[in-house]
Amino acid sequence: MNREIRIGLIGYQFMGRAHANAYQQAARFFDPKARSVMKAVCGRHQDGVEAFARRWGFESCETDWRRLVERKDIDLVDITTPNNLHAEAAVAAAEAGKAVFCEKPLALNLEQAETMLRAVSGNRVFNAVCFNYRRAPALALMKKLIAEGRLGRIYHLRGIYLQDWLLDPEFPLAWRMKKEVAGSGSLGDLASHQIDAARWLLGEFSEVCGRLQTFVKERPVATSEGNLAAVGGSKRGRVTVDDAVLFLARFRNGALGSFEATRFAAGHKNQNRLEVNGEKGSLIFNLERLNELEYYNTDDPEEARGFRLIQVTEPVHPYLSAWWPPGHIIGYEHTFIHTVLDVINAWAAGAPFQPDFKDGLACQRVLAAVSASAASGAWVKLAAPAGTGRRPAPKAEKEEGPKLFNA
Amino acid sequence: MNREIRIGLIGYQFMGRAHANAYQQAARFFDPKARSVMKAVCGRHQDGVEAFARRWGFESCETDWRRLVERKDIDLVDITTPNNLHAEAAVAAAEAGKAVFCEKPLALNLEQAETMLRAVSGNRVFNAVCFNYRRAPALALMKKLIAEGRLGRIYHLRGIYLQDWLLDPEFPLAWRMKKEVAGSGSLGDLASHQIDAARWLLGEFSEVCGRLQTFVKERPVATSEGNLAAVGGSKRGRVTVDDAVLFLARFRNGALGSFEATRFAAGHKNQNRLEVNGEKGSLIFNLERLNELEYYNTDDPEEARGFRLIQVTEPVHPYLSAWWPPGHIIGYEHTFIHTVLDVINAWAAGAPFQPDFKDGLACQRVLAAVSASAASGAWVKLAAPAGTGRRPAPKAEKEEGPKLFNA
Amino acid sequence: MNREIRIGLIGYQFMGRAHANAYQQAARFFDPKARSVMKAVCGRHQDGVEAFARRWGFESCETDWRRLVERKDIDLVDITTPNNLHAEAAVAAAEAGKAVFCEKPLALNLEQAETMLRAVSGNRVFNAVCFNYRRAPALALMKKLIAEGRLGRIYHLRGIYLQDWLLDPEFPLAWRMKKEVAGSGSLGDLASHQIDAARWLLGEFSEVCGRLQTFVKERPVATSEGNLAAVGGSKRGRVTVDDAVLFLARFRNGALGSFEATRFAAGHKNQNRLEVNGEKGSLIFNLERLNELEYYNTDDPEEARGFRLIQVTEPVHPYLSAWWPPGHIIGYEHTFIHTVLDVINAWAAGAPFQPDFKDGLACQRVLAAVSASAASGAWVKLAAPAGTGRRPAPKAEKEEGPKLFNA
Amino acid sequence: MNREIRIGLIGYQFMGRAHANAYQQAARFFDPKARSVMKAVCGRHQDGVEAFARRWGFESCETDWRRLVERKDIDLVDITTPNNLHAEAAVAAAEAGKAVFCEKPLALNLEQAETMLRAVSGNRVFNAVCFNYRRAPALALMKKLIAEGRLGRIYHLRGIYLQDWLLDPEFPLAWRMKKEVAGSGSLGDLASHQIDAARWLLGEFSEVCGRLQTFVKERPVATSEGNLAAVGGSKRGRVTVDDAVLFLARFRNGALGSFEATRFAAGHKNQNRLEVNGEKGSLIFNLERLNELEYYNTDDPEEARGFRLIQVTEPVHPYLSAWWPPGHIIGYEHTFIHTVLDVINAWAAGAPFQPDFKDGLACQRVLAAVSASAASGAWVKLAAPAGTGRRPAPKAEKEEGPKLFNA
Repeated sequence: MNREIRIGLIGYQFMGRAHANAYQQAARFFDPKARSVMKAVCGRHQDGVEAFARRWGFESCETDWRRLVERKDIDLVDITTPNNLHAEAAVAAAEAGKAVFCEKPLALNLEQAETMLRAVSGNRVFNAVCFNYRRAPALALMKKLIAEGRLGRIYHLRGIYLQDWLLDPEFPLAWRMKKEVAGSGSLGDLASHQIDAARWLLGEFSEVCGRLQTFVKERPVATSEGNLAAVGGSKRGRVTVDDAVLFLARFRNGALGSFEATRFAAGHKNQNRLEVNGEKGSLIFNLERLNELEYYNTDDPEEARGFRLIQVTEPVHPYLSAWWPPGHIIGYEHTFIHTVLDVINAWAAGAPFQPDFKDGLACQRVLAAVSASAASGAWVKLAAPAGTGRRPAPKAEKEEGPKLFNA
Repeated sequence: MNREIRIGLIGYQFMGRAHANAYQQAARFFDPKARSVMKAVCGRHQDGVEAFARRWGFESCETDWRRLVERKDIDLVDITTPNNLHAEAAVAAAEAGKAVFCEKPLALNLEQAETMLRAVSGNRVFNAVCFNYRRAPALALMKKLIAEGRLGRIYHLRGIYLQDWLLDPEFPLAWRMKKEVAGSGSLGDLASHQIDAARWLLGEFSEVCGRLQTFVKERPVATSEGNLAAVGGSKRGRVTVDDAVLFLARFRNGALGSFEATRFAAGHKNQNRLEVNGEKGSLIFNLERLNELEYYNTDDPEEARGFRLIQVTEPVHPYLSAWWPPGHIIGYEHTFIHTVLDVINAWAAGAPFQPDFKDGLACQRVLAAVSASAASGAWVKLAAPAGTGRRPAPKAEKEEGPKLFNA
Repeated sequence: MNREIRIGLIGYQFMGRAHANAYQQAARFFDPKARSVMKAVCGRHQDGVEAFARRWGFESCETDWRRLVERKDIDLVDITTPNNLHAEAAVAAAEAGKAVFCEKPLALNLEQAETMLRAVSGNRVFNAVCFNYRRAPALALMKKLIAEGRLGRIYHLRGIYLQDWLLDPEFPLAWRMKKEVAGSGSLGDLASHQIDAARWLLGEFSEVCGRLQTFVKERPVATSEGNLAAVGGSKRGRVTVDDAVLFLARFRNGALGSFEATRFAAGHKNQNRLEVNGEKGSLIFNLERLNELEYYNTDDPEEARGFRLIQVTEPVHPYLSAWWPPGHIIGYEHTFIHTVLDVINAWAAGAPFQPDFKDGLACQRVLAAVSASAASGAWVKLAAPAGTGRRPAPKAEKEEGPKLFNA
Repeated sequence: MNREIRIGLIGYQFMGRAHANAYQQAARFFDPKARSVMKAVCGRHQDGVEAFARRWGFESCETDWRRLVERKDIDLVDITTPNNLHAEAAVAAAEAGKAVFCEKPLALNLEQAETMLRAVSGNRVFNAVCFNYRRAPALALMKKLIAEGRLGRIYHLRGIYLQDWLLDPEFPLAWRMKKEVAGSGSLGDLASHQIDAARWLLGEFSEVCGRLQTFVKERPVATSEGNLAAVGGSKRGRVTVDDAVLFLARFRNGALGSFEATRFAAGHKNQNRLEVNGEKGSLIFNLERLNELEYYNTDDPEEARGFRLIQVTEPVHPYLSAWWPPGHIIGYEHTFIHTVLDVINAWAAGAPFQPDFKDGLACQRVLAAVSASAASGAWVKLAAPAGTGRRPAPKAEKEEGPKLFNA
């Protein structure tokens, strides 16, 4: 492992920290095919970004992302900013010949996503989107079992993503509640994870019908973006994104989908739950208990059938041989570690990574279709994914799968 | 309790048995205000109905429901037949001045349901629909807590009703899979329970958008209706109802609803799950664990908040003081016992019972709207429930509530 | 089924009601080989017993159990009184040539139990003890799976029986807290169920070491036995039984046992939980969710192993074909219905029933050994069960099993 | 934070890696009061220890622990070797004036533990034992709630620690199965965690009665210690420790304890479960779901009481404000991170840390008492913990508590 991958990280808040940690830990617990060098981190506030760099071992700082993108000593630009900066930074990075690793959702809207895909394709640069839950071991195991045909023909996918942090109407207006910064609310932030997982598990969507809802339309304005709790007097601003989204779907393989994402489900903190029902069994994943997978197998003896609660902590499970003995659980941050590991390995091997910008765009198409459906009150069909002209249709899911196990 | 209520039961299969048992047990474990006398039971097959009468203590048998309806010695006609017979029998009973207690869903379609309501209203007879889950103690407690305002403003209701008995494509064609007998499939059989519960808990629906799906379109034909397992050679028939239904909804109170009912969810036998999220908390009911209710209260101390698993087996809980000590659970059949108890008590008191035919019709309107939406691919609005001219609109739920506790 | 079994029931409180209901329901939902005739019920209070007789369909009443035992028109004497009356009534019934069906624990103490066994053996009368949980379908399935060798060699049995109804120190002194009436507290009331189940599942105990504890030593005295809530002024009485019992055990088959029963476990209402770990898997039963059984099978594929949550509600499961469709649960009282069914069928067939008085005595021996150990502070060995000279040792469990399925 | 704490780590297997990671992560996610410098790591195999040092950022390596202990540039000696090396290394470190941080159980036996305590006391060096689960946030919250009196008088503590990795009789003989290296089996490895937690939560034990069992007495011998899977031909060796331990206990505060630890519980991978029942409620912790705590409060309204499933992932919960948003779980390794954080902070502040060697010795006394009881078959009393003459008796638990929250 003489090879290096020199990282330039844009953004150093929640996601920036998750990514910075992932580079460190991937190198400690795994053997990535390239050594990541923390070259530079970029943020708007000099003090903040310097403190972050010290803490996380970055060699240098930038306060203008354009400078970071242009630096010769950067191989991979990792974008963890709010959504409205993804497109510009990713396009610039691609044009500068950098590999690009971008947080989800890929863009503010469909047009941006298309532009971004053109940029990485046209410049032939490595590209990746951080739908990190694909690398939660239990979800990766779910993918493996479905791909092996353990569920047979699929009838239903049921996705709910429930949080409750906006329940308090006095919770201040953050960037995630402004359309010009976030693009959408629960839709892009939460449902996008489920859409990506659903595409990965079942293949493409064929049509959707949805509803967006904003329950609390005005909120106090925070005095500074970085300090959500600091509310500036009586000033209030409009919430311009959805608090909740519901949508029905059909997949090209004939399965029905039912989706719900909300920030108003009291008592649920981060319940990203996905259930798939097929002719031979069912599988259930829940992010709040991400070390577990529920599996029902119709081939079990009739008197002894039931949902199995698999503790996905065994060496035979994806990524787990690098961690602790069975029953010793891992946490949320590990999904980023596994993602970064696979990003580095793919980059080092000159291989594509999934999910890539095509996946990010495909997800964005579904987001856009749900929005359009919510506006029109009617079902919206999704064109066959021939958009970029390079992907064969439907049953692509087997090929699309990431390498589940590290080398 | 000198008063008698003389029962005439039409139908003696699954539901007939559940009702017959309920009359017996209500009198043993409670003190109903009238003594039920099992006057007659009616079924098409003389032998079968006689055996049933002997076993369940009915004084006489009929093989023609019209004769039963006309008998002078019957006070209450209890209709447990397949759905296609509900309307005719209920109208005839009403015209004969009988009290009518009808299984759900009320009718094959909206027109029948309207006719039925006109019949019981016009003839001023006692009328009741057997949405028995309203009397599952945990669901009754959920209603009580919502009615008391414990959840505050309601944001979400999430209903799933999952079964898997049709997974096997060789499972024979039963009456529940024929539109002319059942009206619909999962929609009328399963989703109707959720619609009734949702109306009870939150008030009226304002619009719906849904999808019906039949996964297995042909099935072997059973040689006899009563023997589903006996498949007659290679003959196959068309499934003319939905195997699964999904729909989104809005309620008049502004809440969003998400519903799914299916007979193709491997591993789920009878999971009728209802979750309601409000500004002050959440509640979750699941029929498979009907002695439990989950409750989240945002007023709990911050460090010690969490979903409480209430064992609804205490004397303070609805109907429970009549049963066993705490922690000694009751079963499915008890929901019928409680329903029959309240039917008898309402009848004896000359009081209305809820859910009544107006409720049955209101549910049928939602079923019809979901079907219409599935056909058109668009949202369908539900008229304000002024249909019968006798009910005030929206916030009716408090008044509609049944008496939760037995006297 | 021309044959009749004429029942004489002694006691009409909690257990009397559970038994009376069981006779009624066994005849409705099953086809017992004899028709039970409710000949007489006996209780001390004329008014109470008459009301009970009316409600439950007994033909006559007695207020002196000796009269009931001597009646010529009684075939089976069913004893549901407090424990201190078991011995005298059972011996008298046996001497009168009656079949005897006695509530658990069999007796106040070992001597009584031995006398009782001698009486039924000497008089060659049918005898049965109501350890009703053996007929909870999920526990019966657990027995079946163990008997079939699905767990292989057994290493551990772990039993806890947790209630909390004595937490309040002002809860009045009831008969269950007086040694002269109850014999012991949690030990005889709760742990006896676990001991019986453990013997059934694993075979005989070889030694035990235990501890008894009374946390609240004095309680208010209730004014009347029948009305526990009515506390008579400031009068207090001594609690003379254990509030909690803990004991360790070894079984003849080499397995280790760990047992705990208490009435002071806040939040647990009736958690009778039994777990067995063997070389090939594990099984877990919990009375509060008595329709479920957890099963771990080491033969499942390595990546997909986990405890299965079996919903024991399928027609293939013990007793369930007589009840409702899958997923429609049964309750506590059904364990009595199944027990009564099997008692009647065994009696009608002239066959022995298990658990019988030998089992009742074997359980009593373990209770006595635990008490002796608690007194001495040392392990107490249990003699090989040659007591009555008619039972072969260890691996008896296969033969001892009751018929699991009704005919 | 100009201060440095220079770490010398002895051992680099499972625990070595957990500790090395903890130093790194504590500095990244928290603000420890001293900067840890990874000075040296020591292991027997030059190659292995060098690879470890490179991966984890240690400046130098040693293959003889005596050299490491004597180095002038080490402040804290962190001992993560098998148990048989703890005593010698700790004593030498103390004599060299080093702070000592030792893995659990403290020693092979009581004599060693006493020697170790004398060494650290006599040399007045900082000392700490790595009972890391005290810093699992949910267990720390449990401690806090009990210490605040939320449960009132305590009646029961119920501890089970279930694993299944020795189920296969062909699993090779590892150091954990040899008495001369491990001291004991499940007792010292698993039950020691529960004993420490029990002492922390409830105070001192007063007496115990236990049983040790070795189910599989001989196992294949591994060819090399480091490679458990490599079994050398047909050679077999004796297992000289317990596979399972059961014991009953009484605490000085009057509570009863029930404990079980085993490596033969099929299906349980790392279930370290602790339940405490008091007069006002109950609390349940389970390591396999270490982000959750169950809490029952008898003060909840009667109709809405139930075990609350607290997701211990909120900023108000111990250690959590440093991690991710609510519902984003942490893993096993985080318990070490929190422990190391508190060790560093205590060391930097010149303050004692709990659990220290006195706690380690107190735990060892209970381990020894259980062993003695298992040998004698009788209860064994534990002397009041005046052993070192510096600790006041019984209700010490409030003072003993570690600082739960980092500054």
